[in-house]
Amino acid sequence: VTVLCLPRRIAELLPDDLPDGVRLVTWNGRDQPVPADCATVDLLVPSYMAGALDAATLVRFSRLRAIQLLSAGYDGWPAVTPAGVRLCNGSGIHGGSTAELAVAGISALLRDWPRFERYRAEHQWRDDRTDAIAGKHAVVVGAGDIGRRIGTALEAFGAEVSLVGRTAREGVHWAEELPGLRASADIVVLAAPLTEQTRGLVDAGFLAGLRDGAILVNIARGGWVDTGALVAELNARRLRAVLDVTDPEPLPAGHALWDAPNLVLTPHIGGGTTGWDVRSAALVADQVRRLHAGEPLRHVVHLG
Amino acid sequence: VTVLCLPRRIAELLPDDLPDGVRLVTWNGRDQPVPADCATVDLLVPSYMAGALDAATLVRFSRLRAIQLLSAGYDGWPAVTPAGVRLCNGSGIHGGSTAELAVAGISALLRDWPRFERYRAEHQWRDDRTDAIAGKHAVVVGAGDIGRRIGTALEAFGAEVSLVGRTAREGVHWAEELPGLRASADIVVLAAPLTEQTRGLVDAGFLAGLRDGAILVNIARGGWVDTGALVAELNARRLRAVLDVTDPEPLPAGHALWDAPNLVLTPHIGGGTTGWDVRSAALVADQVRRLHAGEPLRHVVHLG
Repeated sequence: VTVLCLPRRIAELLPDDLPDGVRLVTWNGRDQPVPADCATVDLLVPSYMAGALDAATLVRFSRLRAIQLLSAGYDGWPAVTPAGVRLCNGSGIHGGSTAELAVAGISALLRDWPRFERYRAEHQWRDDRTDAIAGKHAVVVGAGDIGRRIGTALEAFGAEVSLVGRTAREGVHWAEELPGLRASADIVVLAAPLTEQTRGLVDAGFLAGLRDGAILVNIARGGWVDTGALVAELNARRLRAVLDVTDPEPLPAGHALWDAPNLVLTPHIGGGTTGWDVRSAALVADQVRRLHAGEPLRHVVHLG
Repeated sequence: VTVLCLPRRIAELLPDDLPDGVRLVTWNGRDQPVPADCATVDLLVPSYMAGALDAATLVRFSRLRAIQLLSAGYDGWPAVTPAGVRLCNGSGIHGGSTAELAVAGISALLRDWPRFERYRAEHQWRDDRTDAIAGKHAVVVGAGDIGRRIGTALEAFGAEVSLVGRTAREGVHWAEELPGLRASADIVVLAAPLTEQTRGLVDAGFLAGLRDGAILVNIARGGWVDTGALVAELNARRLRAVLDVTDPEPLPAGHALWDAPNLVLTPHIGGGTTGWDVRSAALVADQVRRLHAGEPLRHVVHLG
């Protein structure tokens, strides 16, 4: 099994006891020419958050069997994945830290943390009553690793949670039920991949169907949401939002989102926290062993 | 069954369909004289966070069978609870919102939220890598409603959690194991009642046994912790803390904690958020029905 692992940090963290015959090829994936031995590569591990490689490059990897991404999202990749190649996402690597960011962001809005920071600066012990997650109805769109972690934490904090997935199953609502669930939601969390089906799904009409004061959380991809429509709802102070991803991204200085009210805004920091490299290397090592042993790969999200 | 419910808001929210013969007595519990018919009261519901009534008052409630508190903590009450009277705490009323506050506070320290607020004010999209809850070892002292909710959420965010209770049982460490667990803890959460056994337990020696950079979380009662010893560790920037309760409380202006570094400080707002009144009335109504039916009460924490 020949592995081309673009992020040097992850290659360095791979264990010494990989199966015999596993060979690592190096390439920085950017300005260097594609390595001559690309035709020997079985598994390609692209850089985290660098975007999809182009189809013309990938087609030169003539023996490629799988692409292992280090992100949960995989937008842009299905279109360029060569025929017969399995595309795997990095499920589990960023799930905990992304769920943490989403829930902490919701809490910052509901509990009005800035108010208590102000009181503290004034040495004022004022225990004003605020809202909280308890008793809220949260609709979590996406029943994968991240969505389930968010649901578990929100339930622990006393919310009623509805998980929505592409297919109905035990404990998961069908995507077609989303318009109905939306009407009773206090919180809607986007925690599913950006695909051709989900791009722009949260548009002016979707937002209009949300209750006054509802909180939209996007820790998936900016392309889910019509940014202009959301800015209008925020500026009207009708809706609230927690955004770790935006469209466009990065957000240019002067963009209307920077100063919008009712908004917790962070610069795509849900994943990539301390330990992401160790978790990434462990997943790559496991997939290499599986390829070597002829076992099924984990987290296959698309077959080219 | 005669019920004396001091918080008027909770009395108003009690359902209309309480069993026949249930009678509500009113008294504000403070400046008004104790009502003449106090000798008829079976169940006393004191005001939330008002502190224990004095023993001389309570002894006049000669038929009293139970005291139902609306807080999770019950410090001060065992000493004044008349012989044979069951003391019940408000387990479940504040659990979700208190757990939410504890976990959001931990996240605020680890993810360095103030840094990203600063970047936002400058319209700077800077995705600096930070720490996160994932991969941390959290020791949660207290395996009741609040401690379990905190443990569930921290696990969902990728932490390894050790619950510590007064007695060892399935999934719960024995209190005597705490000194050993403490040495490997990144986070120690105090989520158990303040009693004569736990008062001052977190002293200079306990704190010295924590790792550099460890986070102490107190959402229980200020009396657990030697405030002076903690202030010294914070000012030395060796430890970090999340405090929703303090000793003294309320914290007077000018107290050293207000401006201590490495600290998230809130004014005892873990409980008492939106919906606490509805959850309180539901618990009181259920206990009234149990008394009327001769069934065992829930959440008995002490027998006088």
